[in-house]
Amino acid sequence: MPTVAAYTATSPGSPLTRTTIERRAPGPRDVNVAIHYSGICHSDVHQVKGDWGKGLFPMVPGHEIAGVVTEVGVEVTRHAVGDRVGVGVIVNSCRECRNCTNDLEQYCTGAGSVETYSDTDRYRGDEPTRGGYATHIVVDEHFVHRIPDGLPLEQAAPLLCAGITTYSPLKHWGAGPGKRVAVLGLGGLGHLAVKIAAALGAEVTVLSRSPAKLEDGLRLGAAHCRGTDAPETFTDLAGTFDLVLCTVSAPLDVDAYLSLLATDGTLVYLGIPDQPLTASVFSLLPGRNALAGSQIGGMAETQEMLDFCARHGIGADVEVVDAERVNEAFDRVLGRDVRYRFVIDASTI
Amino acid sequence: MPTVAAYTATSPGSPLTRTTIERRAPGPRDVNVAIHYSGICHSDVHQVKGDWGKGLFPMVPGHEIAGVVTEVGVEVTRHAVGDRVGVGVIVNSCRECRNCTNDLEQYCTGAGSVETYSDTDRYRGDEPTRGGYATHIVVDEHFVHRIPDGLPLEQAAPLLCAGITTYSPLKHWGAGPGKRVAVLGLGGLGHLAVKIAAALGAEVTVLSRSPAKLEDGLRLGAAHCRGTDAPETFTDLAGTFDLVLCTVSAPLDVDAYLSLLATDGTLVYLGIPDQPLTASVFSLLPGRNALAGSQIGGMAETQEMLDFCARHGIGADVEVVDAERVNEAFDRVLGRDVRYRFVIDASTI
Repeated sequence: MPTVAAYTATSPGSPLTRTTIERRAPGPRDVNVAIHYSGICHSDVHQVKGDWGKGLFPMVPGHEIAGVVTEVGVEVTRHAVGDRVGVGVIVNSCRECRNCTNDLEQYCTGAGSVETYSDTDRYRGDEPTRGGYATHIVVDEHFVHRIPDGLPLEQAAPLLCAGITTYSPLKHWGAGPGKRVAVLGLGGLGHLAVKIAAALGAEVTVLSRSPAKLEDGLRLGAAHCRGTDAPETFTDLAGTFDLVLCTVSAPLDVDAYLSLLATDGTLVYLGIPDQPLTASVFSLLPGRNALAGSQIGGMAETQEMLDFCARHGIGADVEVVDAERVNEAFDRVLGRDVRYRFVIDASTI
Repeated sequence: MPTVAAYTATSPGSPLTRTTIERRAPGPRDVNVAIHYSGICHSDVHQVKGDWGKGLFPMVPGHEIAGVVTEVGVEVTRHAVGDRVGVGVIVNSCRECRNCTNDLEQYCTGAGSVETYSDTDRYRGDEPTRGGYATHIVVDEHFVHRIPDGLPLEQAAPLLCAGITTYSPLKHWGAGPGKRVAVLGLGGLGHLAVKIAAALGAEVTVLSRSPAKLEDGLRLGAAHCRGTDAPETFTDLAGTFDLVLCTVSAPLDVDAYLSLLATDGTLVYLGIPDQPLTASVFSLLPGRNALAGSQIGGMAETQEMLDFCARHGIGADVEVVDAERVNEAFDRVLGRDVRYRFVIDASTI
């Protein structure tokens, strides 16, 4: 099996260090991708620390991958050597269940979708999966996406997780002209949610605890920005939004955010708070409101999102870092010191 | 002002006794309804007891009203003397807001919809509202509905609250052929939810704590009935339902019921539990699921529901009681000793 360089955490909480790992030789339907950039998702930090209690070590994180095809299997039809491509949060699924056959691979009800790292590929003999903090990755072509010309690879990488995680619920819950969308939290997910929702034609409001970020919200395309520490935000905006996307994982007063919904509005969780959500039924009944969740997007929708972003000139706001600074970048993610996504330059791995 | 007989609670928790009350003389757009039957909704019991802390006393309960028109104002166009009609949970709204003009009067965002009893009519000089445990009621024609021929009035009365409260979410969330619907709780709301969902063409499952009611579920039109005290119900039915209607107000393990949802499924609360709902975000994300609420229905939809029920031969299963037995009936409601709705014979008031 080919050996490639990668940044690896040997155990929960250990720093990432340069190692070599083995990738499988490309099979008939596989694509070998030379990684150019790999985004640092907040979840990478949690996974490396072992916060969610299910990490598989040694762990190579990374599920926001952009690069160029170097090799294709004999049955590959969708990609060719030299193509600019991306790989996101999942690299396999059963391909047979109702969700998989309806382009909802992220909700695979077979043996479940296979995450790009810290998982075992249940459809390939329980191969361990290792992610994008590496020089190459080998992936079934179905889970590899074209990155349109004109979309810089470093800006495209975060779209593969943060982009699709926000695009999918915006589309599913009908964000568009005449709709009011609030984006709660202006981080990696939030800043892309603002750009995409605005490009879809919705009237976007940023809700953030950080006053320093509110002006940024306007630059990104929001029509309004309001601080969530100001009580008048909740009185002024009561009953306003068709959709509130929650991109934060800190505990929230769920009822307060439900009170911002217009009739038939939905509060959608994209992040994963540590604690259960608590809400009064009186926050749901009087406006036929809903509290919902959404998880990345399907493969066809991910391609649609990349094409949409390219048409609208949307990429992530990134700070490119050399691989040797990845642990420092992790610390800065925890300190919220990034606008809005670190991307590792994989040529430095 | 005309005086009519009514059953009244003078203070929270006091028994209902026969009194007289005043009704307004019908205005130009008003309809005077001679009440034939008045359903006893579980919420009447709560309101009379003062459980929700907002009751206006003296209180005449009743918002499931069926009768015959005896008088109409000069501008009334939709109803005529002798018509069989019904009045439900609300008797006024602002008529101008976006929801009111979109046939969603129940979600009026003006000064709010006006409940049929224990409320003040904010659009009529804060007149106190008094409900259907009476011989007559005077209501603006917009909030009065035709009861089609062939639908017995005593069976129709509960449709005005329990019927529309279940019909509206079934329609809104797309219950129909190819959809799997679970009805949690087989009481006044639940038994009508089963009948209506089955008539809409959905595959209906009753979920009930009461084994004695499970066979009743099949008779009412359910395809399956399962006990909620049996743990295997939750393993067998995991990921099954497009829609779960929760008609119970006892505290529930919300995550357990969310686990029964198929991808894009919704758990809808219709009842009002005493305690906040608590759910893990992990119950929402992996299937793009939602926890929602729904409240009665609009006026046009209420008429649609009555017409639908008449076409499908759907009425409530009722036990008709004389008015002097209303306090005993309240006790039996609390003891769950009713299948499935008490209806007061208003000729005995």
